[in-house]
Amino acid sequence: MEPLSDLMEYVPQSELYNRIEMFQKELKSKDIGYAVIVQNVNVYYFTGSIQKSYLIIPSDGEPLFLVQKDPERARTETHLPVIEIQSIKQLPEVLTSHGLEQKQRVGTEFDFLSVAMFHKLQAILGPKDFSDISLDVLHIRARKSDYELEQIKKSGQICDHVFSKVADYLDQGISEVELSALLQAEGRRVGHQGIMRMRGLNQELTNPHVLSGPCGAVSSFGDVPLCGCGMTPAVAQGASRRTIQSNEPVIIDYGGGYNGYITDETRMYVLGRLDKRLQKAYALSLDILEYFQENACQGANGKLLFEQIESWVVKNRFENNFMGYGPNRVSFVGHGIGLTLNELPVIAKNRDEILEPGMVIAVEPKFVFPGQGAVGVEADYIVQAGKAKRVTGYSTAMQYV
Amino acid sequence: MEPLSDLMEYVPQSELYNRIEMFQKELKSKDIGYAVIVQNVNVYYFTGSIQKSYLIIPSDGEPLFLVQKDPERARTETHLPVIEIQSIKQLPEVLTSHGLEQKQRVGTEFDFLSVAMFHKLQAILGPKDFSDISLDVLHIRARKSDYELEQIKKSGQICDHVFSKVADYLDQGISEVELSALLQAEGRRVGHQGIMRMRGLNQELTNPHVLSGPCGAVSSFGDVPLCGCGMTPAVAQGASRRTIQSNEPVIIDYGGGYNGYITDETRMYVLGRLDKRLQKAYALSLDILEYFQENACQGANGKLLFEQIESWVVKNRFENNFMGYGPNRVSFVGHGIGLTLNELPVIAKNRDEILEPGMVIAVEPKFVFPGQGAVGVEADYIVQAGKAKRVTGYSTAMQYV
Repeated sequence: MEPLSDLMEYVPQSELYNRIEMFQKELKSKDIGYAVIVQNVNVYYFTGSIQKSYLIIPSDGEPLFLVQKDPERARTETHLPVIEIQSIKQLPEVLTSHGLEQKQRVGTEFDFLSVAMFHKLQAILGPKDFSDISLDVLHIRARKSDYELEQIKKSGQICDHVFSKVADYLDQGISEVELSALLQAEGRRVGHQGIMRMRGLNQELTNPHVLSGPCGAVSSFGDVPLCGCGMTPAVAQGASRRTIQSNEPVIIDYGGGYNGYITDETRMYVLGRLDKRLQKAYALSLDILEYFQENACQGANGKLLFEQIESWVVKNRFENNFMGYGPNRVSFVGHGIGLTLNELPVIAKNRDEILEPGMVIAVEPKFVFPGQGAVGVEADYIVQAGKAKRVTGYSTAMQYV
Repeated sequence: MEPLSDLMEYVPQSELYNRIEMFQKELKSKDIGYAVIVQNVNVYYFTGSIQKSYLIIPSDGEPLFLVQKDPERARTETHLPVIEIQSIKQLPEVLTSHGLEQKQRVGTEFDFLSVAMFHKLQAILGPKDFSDISLDVLHIRARKSDYELEQIKKSGQICDHVFSKVADYLDQGISEVELSALLQAEGRRVGHQGIMRMRGLNQELTNPHVLSGPCGAVSSFGDVPLCGCGMTPAVAQGASRRTIQSNEPVIIDYGGGYNGYITDETRMYVLGRLDKRLQKAYALSLDILEYFQENACQGANGKLLFEQIESWVVKNRFENNFMGYGPNRVSFVGHGIGLTLNELPVIAKNRDEILEPGMVIAVEPKFVFPGQGAVGVEADYIVQAGKAKRVTGYSTAMQYV
């Protein structure tokens, strides 16, 4: 067979060491001796591999990439030296052989490690001063390198392809879930990685969300403006069995995934005509996108961007419909994307976030009208000096089929 | 619009209260005052809803289902009374108003709660004696009710449908990922819930796995016999870009999902002919399935079943190929399925597991031949008195296309 390397691309060595160096500066500034990284996306970020492993990053010197399964595959994927282990219990001997056993301050991922895993780590390492490094890694991950932006653009090309196929499939009599299935297959066929990762406990995603008419206004558990009915109360989100009707909003939220990197965009389709008030709300969502693109330059404050957007929403009397309806409104209009769907920065009410070059933000002005459905749009932007840069190319215009 | 209830089915009230009652017996026997349940599958198991919530089950009396978002939707989904909250910080006042504030011993999910969430819970509840109830819930969930077995059968019908469509799509020139995309869409179209849940940190799944020729022998991080190449080191499992060839094994592992319940089956296909040694291993995998079905009755010990299976594998000289190759072999041949893909019981080496009626087990004898690929089969069985009962109907014979 062709070697694995003919079937996939690996993260370049310089990328990995740049990221590790940035993190080591944080560790030093917090006087942390070393960090133990277990979370799959963080292991991938620093090693380019996602094998079953424990990554030790000391504040100085070479990282220790301890791989339990499969060390051979990890060696083909990463540029870091791989230390083969059979069990996490070997961690102390590895630390000792690298002169780290005396370090008292140990960083780890409080946002991810289970209580059981943390107790195990405590038992193995003995009494240490454990410190949370979750946010430090998130802050570093928020600014994407040129290599990462390339992956995000390829992820966005999958979005473009999927949205370009909707009109081929959307027709009288098709259900939300049938359309969702066909679009998911389109994305996978052109290279989607097959899963969508989210940050946080209990977070999960069906992809794409296809919400038609009143289903677009059905709320659920997610910290998102639109949820949808889903197929079952066990997965209370996304496409349902409902047949799509004429003259109602069809809103499709799709996430690309390429080499780990997620994109997150939304487009609208209508079979026939759309109510004037919903058309007006959609036009406002496009204005908001344009405003964001013009003004989300490096140094801008997300809080002020949000305030300006909110003032237009209020001026247009859509304040009860913006980002959900009534008590189910969410507080943000944009969120960072990267190795997960939901990361830093967050563009939200009363949240100071100074934008930095290389941040990638999904902006999703959406409006909910109970009984009628949802309208809105979502597009991904790269922050830079001056005007923000669109990740994808597919038109944001409402498409009448 | 039709009400949500026309689009989906809800868990019956008697189911919920039976489950809660079983759990309360465990709590009493461990002298735990109440349990705090947060994990989505466990919340769904006890309430029939998966909204953003905290479920308090006292050892005696009514459960308290505190729902943050969306309480209105939760009320349509569950038969338990819903207590609307804005924040987890309201937990102490709810406990006080139900006379639970004095209870010292509190159960929670150590296998799931993050360190950060646990610290928050500790800060909110004050000094308590926290105790792990993860395994207690898993033990209860391992024995399925008649209602649950019905859901599993419907989940299995999705598997049957998907496997019956493979021959329509499998042809010269198709890639693993193209075939995987088409099959995933077939499943979704006939009612798949859209996601596959797994238990444990970092566990995730692309669905279906379509592994052709040598890709079937590529190992990765998962505690599974077959992993596959995947599309990227960021998602190192499942279908790849590789074009499927003639005269090699094509092994397809697909998971159904219906009302939360997962099924997990594997079938084999060949374009052309298959190597004799691989045919022999496949015949052995079918014999193992048959043996399991005949002998996995209530009261049987999984350890002894495994030993018998292993002895045949050794007798046929496939011991280096069984359940992986060399150091990447896994120690089990079967695993429980239910609300997650991987639950109790586990049929493994040196693991005492007395089978109980209502347990549902995916048995997956598989053999790995480096450079050539993997062969094997997987089918789901319900434990009862006498012979175990197959969940699905689709033939396990190798299909020559």
